[in-house]
Amino acid sequence: MTALNWNLSPDRFFSPEPSQRRVARSLYDAIVDLPLVCPHGHVDPRVFANPDYEFGTPADLLIIPDHYVFRMLYSQGVPLEALGVPRRDGGPVEEDHRTIWQTLADHFYLFRGTPTGVWLAAEFVEVFGIEEKLTSENAQDIYDQIQAKLDTPLFRPRLLYKRFNIEVLTTTDAATDTLEHHQAIRESGWEGDIRPTFRPDGVVNLDAAGWRENIDTLSQVSGVEVRDYASYIQALEQRRAFFKDMGATATDHAALTAYTEALSPGEAETLFQRALRGEASADDARRFTGHMLMEMARMSIEDGLVMQLHVGSFRNHNELIYQRFGPDKGADIPVQSEFTRNLRPLLNAYGNDPRLTFILFALDESAYSRELAPLAGHYPAMRLGPPWWFFDSIDGMIRYRQNVHETAGLYNTVGFNDDTRAYPSIPARHDVWRRVEANWLAGLVVRGIIDEGEATEMAVESAYGLARRAYKFEGN
Amino acid sequence: MTALNWNLSPDRFFSPEPSQRRVARSLYDAIVDLPLVCPHGHVDPRVFANPDYEFGTPADLLIIPDHYVFRMLYSQGVPLEALGVPRRDGGPVEEDHRTIWQTLADHFYLFRGTPTGVWLAAEFVEVFGIEEKLTSENAQDIYDQIQAKLDTPLFRPRLLYKRFNIEVLTTTDAATDTLEHHQAIRESGWEGDIRPTFRPDGVVNLDAAGWRENIDTLSQVSGVEVRDYASYIQALEQRRAFFKDMGATATDHAALTAYTEALSPGEAETLFQRALRGEASADDARRFTGHMLMEMARMSIEDGLVMQLHVGSFRNHNELIYQRFGPDKGADIPVQSEFTRNLRPLLNAYGNDPRLTFILFALDESAYSRELAPLAGHYPAMRLGPPWWFFDSIDGMIRYRQNVHETAGLYNTVGFNDDTRAYPSIPARHDVWRRVEANWLAGLVVRGIIDEGEATEMAVESAYGLARRAYKFEGN
Amino acid sequence: MTALNWNLSPDRFFSPEPSQRRVARSLYDAIVDLPLVCPHGHVDPRVFANPDYEFGTPADLLIIPDHYVFRMLYSQGVPLEALGVPRRDGGPVEEDHRTIWQTLADHFYLFRGTPTGVWLAAEFVEVFGIEEKLTSENAQDIYDQIQAKLDTPLFRPRLLYKRFNIEVLTTTDAATDTLEHHQAIRESGWEGDIRPTFRPDGVVNLDAAGWRENIDTLSQVSGVEVRDYASYIQALEQRRAFFKDMGATATDHAALTAYTEALSPGEAETLFQRALRGEASADDARRFTGHMLMEMARMSIEDGLVMQLHVGSFRNHNELIYQRFGPDKGADIPVQSEFTRNLRPLLNAYGNDPRLTFILFALDESAYSRELAPLAGHYPAMRLGPPWWFFDSIDGMIRYRQNVHETAGLYNTVGFNDDTRAYPSIPARHDVWRRVEANWLAGLVVRGIIDEGEATEMAVESAYGLARRAYKFEGN
Repeated sequence: MTALNWNLSPDRFFSPEPSQRRVARSLYDAIVDLPLVCPHGHVDPRVFANPDYEFGTPADLLIIPDHYVFRMLYSQGVPLEALGVPRRDGGPVEEDHRTIWQTLADHFYLFRGTPTGVWLAAEFVEVFGIEEKLTSENAQDIYDQIQAKLDTPLFRPRLLYKRFNIEVLTTTDAATDTLEHHQAIRESGWEGDIRPTFRPDGVVNLDAAGWRENIDTLSQVSGVEVRDYASYIQALEQRRAFFKDMGATATDHAALTAYTEALSPGEAETLFQRALRGEASADDARRFTGHMLMEMARMSIEDGLVMQLHVGSFRNHNELIYQRFGPDKGADIPVQSEFTRNLRPLLNAYGNDPRLTFILFALDESAYSRELAPLAGHYPAMRLGPPWWFFDSIDGMIRYRQNVHETAGLYNTVGFNDDTRAYPSIPARHDVWRRVEANWLAGLVVRGIIDEGEATEMAVESAYGLARRAYKFEGN
Repeated sequence: MTALNWNLSPDRFFSPEPSQRRVARSLYDAIVDLPLVCPHGHVDPRVFANPDYEFGTPADLLIIPDHYVFRMLYSQGVPLEALGVPRRDGGPVEEDHRTIWQTLADHFYLFRGTPTGVWLAAEFVEVFGIEEKLTSENAQDIYDQIQAKLDTPLFRPRLLYKRFNIEVLTTTDAATDTLEHHQAIRESGWEGDIRPTFRPDGVVNLDAAGWRENIDTLSQVSGVEVRDYASYIQALEQRRAFFKDMGATATDHAALTAYTEALSPGEAETLFQRALRGEASADDARRFTGHMLMEMARMSIEDGLVMQLHVGSFRNHNELIYQRFGPDKGADIPVQSEFTRNLRPLLNAYGNDPRLTFILFALDESAYSRELAPLAGHYPAMRLGPPWWFFDSIDGMIRYRQNVHETAGLYNTVGFNDDTRAYPSIPARHDVWRRVEANWLAGLVVRGIIDEGEATEMAVESAYGLARRAYKFEGN
Repeated sequence: MTALNWNLSPDRFFSPEPSQRRVARSLYDAIVDLPLVCPHGHVDPRVFANPDYEFGTPADLLIIPDHYVFRMLYSQGVPLEALGVPRRDGGPVEEDHRTIWQTLADHFYLFRGTPTGVWLAAEFVEVFGIEEKLTSENAQDIYDQIQAKLDTPLFRPRLLYKRFNIEVLTTTDAATDTLEHHQAIRESGWEGDIRPTFRPDGVVNLDAAGWRENIDTLSQVSGVEVRDYASYIQALEQRRAFFKDMGATATDHAALTAYTEALSPGEAETLFQRALRGEASADDARRFTGHMLMEMARMSIEDGLVMQLHVGSFRNHNELIYQRFGPDKGADIPVQSEFTRNLRPLLNAYGNDPRLTFILFALDESAYSRELAPLAGHYPAMRLGPPWWFFDSIDGMIRYRQNVHETAGLYNTVGFNDDTRAYPSIPARHDVWRRVEANWLAGLVVRGIIDEGEATEMAVESAYGLARRAYKFEGN
């Protein structure tokens, strides 16, 4: 029979082989209390701006905004409406959060062995103190228990920040964002370290939804009237300076492919003008994004902001879901990605400059050993980000090190990113990383590849040092 | 020295680590006696139509028809003629089955550590009761032992069906097949559950060998004179209804790529007419197949037949072998496959409809984690088939779960398919799956990812429940 | 704390699980003393031609010529100049080898868990007798110790050849090479078995640097005036005969892709003439190389030279490094590779002929299970080379067998190639292979897939027999 309580073994995710497990536990013990460094994620800064922010119901917190959760139920035939996901047209969706919670409980077996299952179990036990497994029978009881916790002042985001032992947390913000919530956090005198990240996709990708309006907003917020390519670049530089002033240490860029290309000033102007007139083609968009990635690398060398690039997600694959519910609904599907040829222009122009830190994230694991590790193992500017999205998982992390480490080593990687909008899952996500890394290093120790002293230093780097240094949080 | 007897450890394919092995054995014990569900395969229905069917010699049964076996010897320089594989031109091939058997024995070391080696060892011991390993020295003795068994009534296919504990077995049949052997089985009153599968490649792929003649046969057997696209669709619908009436619950389609596209009625007609005139180009064939996959999905929603799609085999790569011996001679080689973009038209049109069950099989393992698991983990209609062909193997199954499970979960997969024309290998193939799955789940248990109760439920699903439900055998 | 001495466990690289470790150790013991067969590599033959050859300083031997070493330091911001890598323009680079050595020591932590780290540890202990780990503090002491060894007659290459237990070692030589060092070795009466390998890339790839000059040299050394395609082929055949006469048993070819195509004689002539006039396009080069690979296969069938093909390295990715330091500076990055369609012309023309041995090496591991193992498991002529370059590593070897073995078996692979220009690393590289293979086979044994007798035979084949037979060293 299935156990009644969550299974949260102190040795979870470690090899069952006793000698490896012993070393893994010892390495884990050396890092478990290190603060959490969160250099890339999607928590809403509003959550910290208001000291009395409340999360709402268990469904508000754990289901409705989390595409990791609802996509799995959708894949098995549960309509998103039944999970309370709001429709764009304001059409009817389930409003009874107890019913939504019951639907999750009824389908909770779907998460067996998945990262979401692992995170939620840890959240139940370690954040909410609930030992009992969620079932159809106890769903309403557990709903009550979580709601009771959420209603107490202990579950305000700022207190959780302290309880979670977070040292720094970055958000991801449009280039046109006024960062008013970050401003409010600063002005509040709270000691939490919340920083913005400059994400200019909405004004850089010519085919982004609302690009034209975004350009107008860019003019407004930057105070630079964008009417040509030169003023556009000037406005972007202004925004970067503003973000940096607000504590940002990094930018972030998303692109379907890693294509880069240096356009001549004339070409850049022509494409930009076509886009202003609403006449840019798909190929224009592709080339302009490729060009702007190079421009962003140039600016990063100048202003010191770390450059992140996320490649390979085909967004909004399911037209019906996109029309009805909008983006980020679990329908972004990876595509094959090419890096060796695509990144060559950027890396040849800027990759030899150690002032640049260029961190790449990928969804095509076949490129890990073939292209990404060899590139990161050569160019001084290039680093490889941790396993992303679907691969932020136990086996995903194992494959990442197996495929990357021997060629790129540890020091061309940058530790962990939780990359989440699910704030209470942050400790669980870092804990999975730390356990899997401890077990990986223990495997190297017991196979005689490194010794335990080296492993301990590497574990501390992986859990803490690499991220702090790569993202320039030291001394900031 | 090499052991004299087959090594059939009761704990074979389990981790040597004692705690994992203990759990694996316990999970395996829970499923070892479950009936075999065989929802996709290539056993000839004639084998069951005649209650007195005999398999012939050991070479007839185990070598001459089995490309898994003879391709390995061919790769090491043994001519197919020496293995009795019939030539298209009726040219001379080895006719002495004892000589053929001796050649297998002389090269049996080639199968060390391969799935074919594993299956044959299990067949020798568990089907034929032969403990001794096959060697050059004892080859003729073992030939005699097997022949003696085959000559007894106990080795008639219908008795083996019972002995193998098969619950249901499907064959794969051309859309134009009259299903006379299935008819004979039905009329015989035998209690075995043998079902056809509708495989229309020969009339759907414009570049299939003999497409034009197949269309004529389609007219004949359907009673619908196919002269245009509309009558073609009507004839196909008639055949599907006939197959369904004969017990079919599924269709199967093979395509070089996963390309799908909805042609306008006018375009479909144009392409179809060009094909009738023998003027279809390679690109016409590609687009027409892509269109017909969508049509088949539409029909599946209407008639409830489960839709299977096998993608990525470059058939008949070796022209010499194809000319001399025909298709299915071990010369089909996988190619890189793209699914995210190719399947989008089909999934956007039909993938949100839970009435459709669309099961995908692939030969490009790099797509498992990148495209297939994310797609199966989102679209309600989509499921991922088990590891296919070269990957129906111990390590192939391990990679499958490692790459698929965390994103798609267990319940977007469909259990096991033996996919074989080698009838006596069926129990061995299912046994490999059950053992590897038990060991995989045991690994999750000892690493604290799931508990043993969950693992037991998942093991039963993997061995039995998923296939039964996905292929709609329940209540049929 | 990190240990003070190198960690060279007698059980290194074996599973920690006691039963597997026991079998692995026993298999390793059975092969550890077998001679080293080195059928592909880049050691300079000059090293053996002069019986008194000296290696110079520790930096001369272990850093300056080894791109495996300096690329990792470069990736972390150490300029190649600081490592003494000579500039093309003769510009200033660090000349103090003690300073260079210190820089290596200061960054030695970068190699933790990498193959280079593993090889160097083994070289320090087993070649130089230095137990202490290299640190910033002891760097100069260790420099002195190594220099002292290098200064003794025991460290002459010919003595090391004997000490390393090498049976045969091949070099890689341009088609236009006069093989004077090989001649000198022969004439010296030394019993070492050093053989050349025919590598015609410089005269076959129309876009090779200096192709036109290479053709002139080809005319000179062959005595055939190359003025058209026919004389070009004749000159190549002359060179192959010369290499074979000098002991060569193999050729080697490098290509960006595996593209093959049989040009008509007229087309070949046209392309060749365009190239002579310096007018060949990139596409001409691609097609001509594809054609010449087929020609080389034809010649191999005639003269019996084993044909090797290395596919998928994008050479000189970093233009700055190439301009400043030249080729082979750690900036060659793999690209996605396609084999099924690209090799079809060659394999259809020559792959069924068992007189041909065609050994393929790849840098795109996703092709292992998808294309390479199925091709090697079908065509009599085709064999798969060992894991190459970045994948000549512990995990790389594990992935290789996991992905290749079940489809291709052991006997369609060819054992190990050290592929190195770092002569003192040869024993360490073979030792890694032998240990990883012993552990792989032990894993099959403890999982009941093969028995220990079979494993022992396979281990001997892997360490010794396969390479000797594939490269025709037996009886040569």
